[in-house]
Order: sequence, then C-alpha cells, then structure tokens
Amino acid sequence: MFEKNAHTAVPIHPLMARRWSGRAYDPDRPVAREDLLAMLEAARWAPSCYGDQPWRFIVWDRIADEPAWWRAFSCLAEGNRSWAGAAPVLLLATADTLFSHNGKPNRWAAYDTGAASMSLVLQATALGIMAHQMGGFDAARLREEFSIPEQVEPMAMITLGYQLSLQEMDEAQRERETAPRQRRPLGENFFEGEWGRPVRIR
Amino acid sequence: MFEKNAHTAVPIHPLMARRWSGRAYDPDRPVAREDLLAMLEAARWAPSCYGDQPWRFIVWDRIADEPAWWRAFSCLAEGNRSWAGAAPVLLLATADTLFSHNGKPNRWAAYDTGAASMSLVLQATALGIMAHQMGGFDAARLREEFSIPEQVEPMAMITLGYQLSLQEMDEAQRERETAPRQRRPLGENFFEGEWGRPVRIR
Repeated sequence: MFEKNAHTAVPIHPLMARRWSGRAYDPDRPVAREDLLAMLEAARWAPSCYGDQPWRFIVWDRIADEPAWWRAFSCLAEGNRSWAGAAPVLLLATADTLFSHNGKPNRWAAYDTGAASMSLVLQATALGIMAHQMGGFDAARLREEFSIPEQVEPMAMITLGYQLSLQEMDEAQRERETAPRQRRPLGENFFEGEWGRPVRIR
Repeated sequence: MFEKNAHTAVPIHPLMARRWSGRAYDPDRPVAREDLLAMLEAARWAPSCYGDQPWRFIVWDRIADEPAWWRAFSCLAEGNRSWAGAAPVLLLATADTLFSHNGKPNRWAAYDTGAASMSLVLQATALGIMAHQMGGFDAARLREEFSIPEQVEPMAMITLGYQLSLQEMDEAQRERETAPRQRRPLGENFFEGEWGRPVRIR
C-alpha cells in the first residue's frame, strides 16, 4: 500500500498511522495462508469482557473455495460489490450476543468484536495487506446462507488483499485512493474531566 | 511491562503479541501528557462506519485534577477499585448510538468504539504503558456524575499507567500478573466457508 499517514498532533506508532481502508485491490495477488492465519491470530488475542472472546469470524478465500466466496460476495451491498470483487479474501466479523459462561446478554459483544477486527486489520497493515471493513451488506441473507445462529450478530464484512500500485489504478481509482484521510478535531471526541470539555493539549 | 507474549501458531506483530491487561500499577509514575495524547490520537484515527467516529472518551488524570479522578474512580465496581486506585489515569470509552449525519441508530457504535479503544491500548503498549479495560462500573452513576447524554452508552473504563517491576509487586500481585494468558483454540472462533467449520491451518 502507498503511504497516507494520519496527521497527528504527536507521533503515533506507524502501524496505526499507516492503516487506512483503500478499495483498489489487485485481483491477481492472493493472500498467503500464513498471512491470513497471522491476521486471525491477532484478532484471537484481543481483550474481551470476562475473557469471553465473543467474536466469530468466517473466512472466504477465493483461491481455496470460489463458490463459497461468491455466495459471500453476493451478500454485499451494491456499492461495495462495485470494488470488493477484486479482493481475494472476504471475512465476516460477527458477535455472539450471549455470554458463553451463563447465556446472559453480553453488552460488550460488539465492542469486543470491534477490538478483534481492529487487531486483525492492524496485523494486515503490518503485512502490507489492505483491509477494508464494510457495514453495507445483507445481514439477513448472510445469516440464512451460512446458517449463522440467531444469537450471533453479523457486524462487518472485511476485504483482504493487496493494493494495486498507483500506476495500475484507473483514473477514478487513483482519485478515490489518494483522497486525504480526515478525522474530527481531537477535542470534539476526547474530553477531560467532564463531558464535552476538550482534552488539554499541553 | 514484563513480556508475556501470546502463543500463536504463526508470528504476529509484537504490538499485538505483547499487549496484555495487567493490574499492578506503579502509583508514583504519572503518564506524560504527550504520551496520553498519542494514545488518544491512535484512537482518533480508528476506522468507523460512514466515518462517523461514534466514540467519545473522557480522561481523568490524577495529577491534573485529583477530585475529578476520584469521582470517576468511585464509579468503578468494588473488584476493580481493589487495584485500579494505583493507576494515575482513568478513561471512559463511550459510544454515541445515533449517527451524527442523520440522527438514526448506529448499530456499529459499540463495534467502532471497541476498535478505537483497541487502537488506544496498542499505542499504550508501544509506549510501555499498561492499559486495562474494565466492564465493571456503575454506568448510571457515571452518566449522572458527568452529564453523559442519553444517546451515549458508557462501554468501558480504562486504566493507564506503568506496571510495577516484578520485584516491587507483593506476592498476590506477582501471582496474578504472571498467570498465563489464554485464548480458545483458533478453530473455535474462526471458521472457513461455513459457520462452525474450523479455519484451515495449512
């Protein structure tokens, strides 16, 4: 991936500074099994409430099982299908909403699953692999297609693969991929002492 | 922090391998403002659905404002108060459950907030700072004490600070801190092609 570092007031670790969600995948470059496993291992070791590990991921590797990959791909929203088809690997991140130790609702199921996915995409970054999380998909269809239990909530589909070089992108891809990354000013989301009081910078 | 690396089938990036949630904080070593800002910046640049950035964090730095720190600390569950009192910084991670662009429910609010918190704790790891996320706290009391809006859900309190050396810990601390880290086998949470079919290792 080309670099498009986050603009931060103070330096942050390159893994977090360099991670971003591109869309221009190289359709001809598969993800090695060892690299895929490294990403899953990174997710596996995320922290969770009561150590419940409420995340469940399903992997579809186009090289290993193309029909299954297509079934997953077809559950994506149209906007995502326009670019995600070039990604050799699709993932679904789901959250088991009931604690395994007592069957009661786990209000951290989605929160902990988001942490696991973040760990996964940072491992992707470390490997030079581009990950893009998507909320646009037909959850009901995924549930039916892959027999996902009722207590389990599909949260995000994730594309994995390698980015095209800037030279290989068409004009529209290049424009979209090089658009600047933006975030709200720090003080809008990070408070100090009281709700709404911007964190002190010095 | 002393090292207690995750046992993984394939190597993962040291940031994720080394992160773990200890409890034995050094009460005498504050967190530098620059390091705190780096952790917040890491959270700030996490990905989110529609780029909504639904996370809101509140920081309580004992050195900067001890009364506010105490008000936050007193909202922790008793089990957490038994050790978290030595941490110089407390954070609350909250999720705005309504999209900012249209005011509709954001079903990724907790998921995205979990990602931001993961990014924050990994930046802590990079700085040698120990972060520990907690689900045990009185959310209603926090809400009242700090005027947290109704649409915002308190998700986790997080301690930040430096770990005591093994020599400085008492026997109970040492035993707890050195207990092995454990996770379910990969195939229990990571499937391939279909729900429940363990991911292929080779």
